[in-house]
Amino acid sequence: MIVDGKHYRTIEASLDQSSVIIIDQTRLPFDFHLIRIASLHEMEIAITTMQVRGAPLIGVSAAFGIALACNDNVSDNAIERAKLSLLATRPTAINLAWAVTRLCHALLATPEHQRKDKAWDLAQSMADEDVSINRRIGLAGLTLLESIDKPIINVLTHCNAGWLATIDFGTALSPIYEAKAKGLAVHVWVDETRPRNQGMSLTAWELEKAGIPHTVISDNAGGLLMQQGKVDCVLVGADRVGIDGSVCNKIGTYLKALPAKVHKVPFYVAAPKSTLDKDFTFANQTFEIENRDERELFRISGINKEGHLTEVRIGEAKGYNPAFDITPPEYISKLICEDGVFDPSQLRGLLL
Amino acid sequence: MIVDGKHYRTIEASLDQSSVIIIDQTRLPFDFHLIRIASLHEMEIAITTMQVRGAPLIGVSAAFGIALACNDNVSDNAIERAKLSLLATRPTAINLAWAVTRLCHALLATPEHQRKDKAWDLAQSMADEDVSINRRIGLAGLTLLESIDKPIINVLTHCNAGWLATIDFGTALSPIYEAKAKGLAVHVWVDETRPRNQGMSLTAWELEKAGIPHTVISDNAGGLLMQQGKVDCVLVGADRVGIDGSVCNKIGTYLKALPAKVHKVPFYVAAPKSTLDKDFTFANQTFEIENRDERELFRISGINKEGHLTEVRIGEAKGYNPAFDITPPEYISKLICEDGVFDPSQLRGLLL
Repeated sequence: MIVDGKHYRTIEASLDQSSVIIIDQTRLPFDFHLIRIASLHEMEIAITTMQVRGAPLIGVSAAFGIALACNDNVSDNAIERAKLSLLATRPTAINLAWAVTRLCHALLATPEHQRKDKAWDLAQSMADEDVSINRRIGLAGLTLLESIDKPIINVLTHCNAGWLATIDFGTALSPIYEAKAKGLAVHVWVDETRPRNQGMSLTAWELEKAGIPHTVISDNAGGLLMQQGKVDCVLVGADRVGIDGSVCNKIGTYLKALPAKVHKVPFYVAAPKSTLDKDFTFANQTFEIENRDERELFRISGINKEGHLTEVRIGEAKGYNPAFDITPPEYISKLICEDGVFDPSQLRGLLL
Repeated sequence: MIVDGKHYRTIEASLDQSSVIIIDQTRLPFDFHLIRIASLHEMEIAITTMQVRGAPLIGVSAAFGIALACNDNVSDNAIERAKLSLLATRPTAINLAWAVTRLCHALLATPEHQRKDKAWDLAQSMADEDVSINRRIGLAGLTLLESIDKPIINVLTHCNAGWLATIDFGTALSPIYEAKAKGLAVHVWVDETRPRNQGMSLTAWELEKAGIPHTVISDNAGGLLMQQGKVDCVLVGADRVGIDGSVCNKIGTYLKALPAKVHKVPFYVAAPKSTLDKDFTFANQTFEIENRDERELFRISGINKEGHLTEVRIGEAKGYNPAFDITPPEYISKLICEDGVFDPSQLRGLLL
């Protein structure tokens, strides 16, 4: 997408394959700052500290992490070690495991002297594939927005599933960008998305750069807005989608699905097929829901009176900080992926 | 309640009736700071800026505001002017209108030379009445907690309906204080309650001072916790209760009532009878839901690295900041007031 007149992706490999450039997303919306990641270790830190975040982006970032590891050592052992340490960085999003497993499998079947080039090629093609998938998600989701017969379409979104969460275009925001390009009038209610405020910091920033009208609300406000008829659809991303249509996404997603059902507001989830987990159903939650450091609740960064980005401590109690929740399939109106728009019950067929 | 070995109420009149002392609640939990309010104007600022907040406390604070106004001028006109300007400070909580209207009605029926003393007497008796009511709410609510057969009772609460929201003891937290006194093991999940974070800043501080185990969570987490069976009941206060049992309370309350119903978690609301509005039903919302300054979303205070309480700007978008929402009666398991425990359908009888 375009930032200040220049086109960016969220992650770009250097021409000499020695490093990748990422946007430090922890400094947005105040500071659009690029950083160079030159080793597996630096990439692990970038993923853990959420300088890169969003299920599709951490998948591709992890793939580039393997490529960076191959710059140092292409032995079977080194690749296995890199894989395991990347898998531990974020346990819930399936794309990371999917990307790393797929890449390492291919590398181990490749002669050692070709592994480095192969790793960079595959990581780059995963990035390119993500961009292409997200365009198709955007066009599929656009049909749902076009079917809403309102002068202004009010979409509520939670967290950030925009281009910053992917390589480009985004998942949940991709249909909104397509709608804008087609001249539809869309307004987005942006959940601030505590505790890390990806909505306030990233989604609002993205929409601002794209010229799409939007309003930030506290995560608490969506129920009232739906009661008052101010939301025409909810559109969110997913970190993992169960084969029954269950959706694991940012904590609080479930609390928007509940009022959407009560107030007959369509609840749409946009995610690439790589997010599908054939072993996961609502009754069988086969993976760990990541509990993040409770300090994320009590510390927050912002601009102080002197204009400096600074961290403050806003509380001092014991906290509990689960990062995701699971919305059962009966609350999901439609799932949007690169192959089109589906009912939750149709997902099993999609894997065949 | 006790703070550092000394007993406090949230508002106390000076012996010479020249001023009242309040706790500046905007500086908690970092700074327990008392301030002296010596005029109607200062009281209006204290209410508007939420140095005092919580439906019962703002009612009594407004009553003392009238008393302070009477220190300057006891004419009918002056009392009417004081009443109107206090009514404008917070439009949603009914206690404020109830207290001010009741007090002014009594004053206007009193000879002018007795009005000042009468105003201070009545304001003080409203404060004393609040304390007595909250004790009775605590004992009534205790029966509900005692009926939960668990080794540790996990209560989820939203916002602050503790002693800081009242003159003493609180409404929603009063049963928890009674439970603690009786030796029941209670643990409280504290919603941080964006955008003003009364849960993280006030409820957690109160519970800490009272020695009650508690854990702060983001407002987004309650749905997951209820799914996982980690919540035995929800217990909140109310700013206004409809005669059909509808509950107007801090924004986000409705988003906890929805999962409570789905997961069969009892949803209890504790409020004095003065909160009842006989004209309000879910179908007939006769009052304004206060929209507060959107800057409350984007600015937050905390302790910086140098140890100073400082404000930072955490976002820079357009915002929308409604302060309350309304939960329909079908989501309310029981209402707790000073007369006991009631079903929503029983409220009409309570007013007879």
